[in-house]
Amino acid sequence: MDDPIKGFRDFYPDEMGPRRAVIDTIESVSRRYGYREIGTPALEPTQLYIDKSGEEIVEELYSFTDQGGRELALTPELTPTVARMVVAKQQALSKPIKWRSTRPFWRYEEPQQGRFREFYQTNVDCFGSAEPMADAEILALTANSLTALGLDRESFEFRISHRDILGGLLESFDADITVGGAIRAVDKREKIDLATYYELLENSGLTTEQASTFDELLAVESLDELLDYAEGDRLTSAITNLQDVLANAEELGVRQYCTLSLDTARGLDYYTGTVFECFDSTGSVSRAVFGGGRYDELIEGYGGQPTPAVGVAFGHATLSLLLDNAGVLPDESLQTDYYVLTVGETRAVATEIVQSLRNSGHVVETDIADRSFGSQMGYADSIGAETVIIVGERDLENDEVTIKAMDSGEQTTVPLAAIREDTSPTVDDYA
Amino acid sequence: MDDPIKGFRDFYPDEMGPRRAVIDTIESVSRRYGYREIGTPALEPTQLYIDKSGEEIVEELYSFTDQGGRELALTPELTPTVARMVVAKQQALSKPIKWRSTRPFWRYEEPQQGRFREFYQTNVDCFGSAEPMADAEILALTANSLTALGLDRESFEFRISHRDILGGLLESFDADITVGGAIRAVDKREKIDLATYYELLENSGLTTEQASTFDELLAVESLDELLDYAEGDRLTSAITNLQDVLANAEELGVRQYCTLSLDTARGLDYYTGTVFECFDSTGSVSRAVFGGGRYDELIEGYGGQPTPAVGVAFGHATLSLLLDNAGVLPDESLQTDYYVLTVGETRAVATEIVQSLRNSGHVVETDIADRSFGSQMGYADSIGAETVIIVGERDLENDEVTIKAMDSGEQTTVPLAAIREDTSPTVDDYA
Repeated sequence: MDDPIKGFRDFYPDEMGPRRAVIDTIESVSRRYGYREIGTPALEPTQLYIDKSGEEIVEELYSFTDQGGRELALTPELTPTVARMVVAKQQALSKPIKWRSTRPFWRYEEPQQGRFREFYQTNVDCFGSAEPMADAEILALTANSLTALGLDRESFEFRISHRDILGGLLESFDADITVGGAIRAVDKREKIDLATYYELLENSGLTTEQASTFDELLAVESLDELLDYAEGDRLTSAITNLQDVLANAEELGVRQYCTLSLDTARGLDYYTGTVFECFDSTGSVSRAVFGGGRYDELIEGYGGQPTPAVGVAFGHATLSLLLDNAGVLPDESLQTDYYVLTVGETRAVATEIVQSLRNSGHVVETDIADRSFGSQMGYADSIGAETVIIVGERDLENDEVTIKAMDSGEQTTVPLAAIREDTSPTVDDYA
Repeated sequence: MDDPIKGFRDFYPDEMGPRRAVIDTIESVSRRYGYREIGTPALEPTQLYIDKSGEEIVEELYSFTDQGGRELALTPELTPTVARMVVAKQQALSKPIKWRSTRPFWRYEEPQQGRFREFYQTNVDCFGSAEPMADAEILALTANSLTALGLDRESFEFRISHRDILGGLLESFDADITVGGAIRAVDKREKIDLATYYELLENSGLTTEQASTFDELLAVESLDELLDYAEGDRLTSAITNLQDVLANAEELGVRQYCTLSLDTARGLDYYTGTVFECFDSTGSVSRAVFGGGRYDELIEGYGGQPTPAVGVAFGHATLSLLLDNAGVLPDESLQTDYYVLTVGETRAVATEIVQSLRNSGHVVETDIADRSFGSQMGYADSIGAETVIIVGERDLENDEVTIKAMDSGEQTTVPLAAIREDTSPTVDDYA
């Protein structure tokens, strides 16, 4: 009974510290882009997910019937919930609606590297703009978040495409094609062998020759090249739209992180425009770290007014792997500004110093377990105290305290009056 | 399907903003006291709660059997989970273990004022110190959190007692008493009529006369007075311990928030020492806003080494009511530092200003929906923009932009070069 259940995790402070630092960075960047925090329920009617993904989704859900007979599911993703929230207040909310949140989700899946049954995401979504600038803004805040975390162009790239490019190319063939099936084949391309890939394309209606042509077109390096080939409004406007998104990304300074990748399809059927996936350029995380894109039909699908939408979902488990591989996962050790050590009957003075330093915003610990000098010093070390202030009876007789820098071991005595005034005392100030 | 399920809540940005401000304040104060953040699962084996509270707890839980046959429950409280985590790493963790976290919990209960089926708590717990200073530290960080939120002694008080005072007093009677039953009677005292209260006391073994004496003793105003009456080590040491806790609270500057209240029992059976409840002194929230106390036997009960523990659980729903009653609930309106408005083909310059201000840490929005001047200005107003920077074609020809203070309506033109250099431009700087 000591361990969490399968696929769930306990985060002790040494693991939670870096996680929180990552979350705070992404939240902070999104906040500066004007994305406002929302709070959402952990349970929704199971039907919400069946409506979006079909009955087969239920086996991936933690779903059950509550005491009141409601069929409920632990939320496996945020999108249906925010769609519901947008629909509920569609008239009252000023557009574009720009929302963010970080929280756990749950899926009954087999755990593997970077995948858990309880997993955390930061979702950032924009509702109410069909303009390429909205897509570019999502790309920009995503890239800015990753660079703020210490990643650079060497460690990640966004593989970007437009959902209608695949659809448009497929429609341009003179064949009766199941577009969704072909797109799913493309989405699986890197995970399956070539023969299976071709088989799936052919199952969706392409001839072997068409499948081959299709696959070659996916590999073009510029959209202009593809535009030469394009037939039909859908394909042309998709290419033009993606070009506009990339031009806007250029203005926002993040074009450099985007690689054209027409075989990026994001498995989810609900994407309608730009799709992108973040990949670990070092290759250590083989699948997409996370992704996002445009989904203009979802709100209408949930009964709302037609509302264009674009967003990204940062997956924290895979992102941690990427940060770790790149050597920029935030430091894991506990950090403490001051430990105030008491020797003898000095509690009253020590407590005064402790509370004063806390009021100045420092992280301060002191003895709350009536321990010896050595035991307190050991504890101060274990919590990564930078400075130890020793309040001893003999020093106090001279109206002094001793302060010690834990990294250098250097220590010095300081007048009590000085410590009382000093909002950030360090050994260097007094040595 | 637009609303969340019964007892669950959606938080739109105007509601989430103040909630986040409250959470951040409590987290920040706890952090300064050296309490480290942990992360915990939303699901635990149902047995974890049955072990602590008995089979009858199950009807209050969201519990179910997962696809793998596990009996699981949505966590109704944090304590069993942290107990499990302490037991799992008891040897490796340096003591005292000081942990905090803020997250939702779930109970299948009838919603009422300040009570929901999904509710948020900040839990702050200390494991490994039996010293009164540990209890006092919890009281101090709790009081400091509330004063940091803008509350004062007029708006809240901690009603404080020691679990063994009730037990010790009851044992001092020459009668065969069910102590737990009598304590539950005391716990319900304010919610039931006097006759029922006496009936419950008598059911637990007291005579009518003893019940009357007991009830009088609960009303003493000083612990010294009670000490005169005390017989038996248990009662004496409980009184002495509570006196020590209050003396330490005095040193920490928070004695003033504590009112002796011997009938405060905290319904939960697992408390073993100090118990306290925060009450709304204005009387608007009639029941306890939240509470905490010492629970020295819980870790051992979950199979760990004997480990003293003390903690508090801030309940955010009732705390919000208290803050609202006291008129200090943080401001609900959206806030935005800058809206950068584009007129004509000025996007490139506008975007440069936007990204530069975001890099300086400001919350900045701009047009991502290709809208008119008036529509952009309306949006800027709706998001509470303090300053609007208007990047217009004609101004740009003179290498100028216009900036406008939204509260005063005052506006002025500013050289583009100046805006590019200025990390926090305001109308006042240029008017």
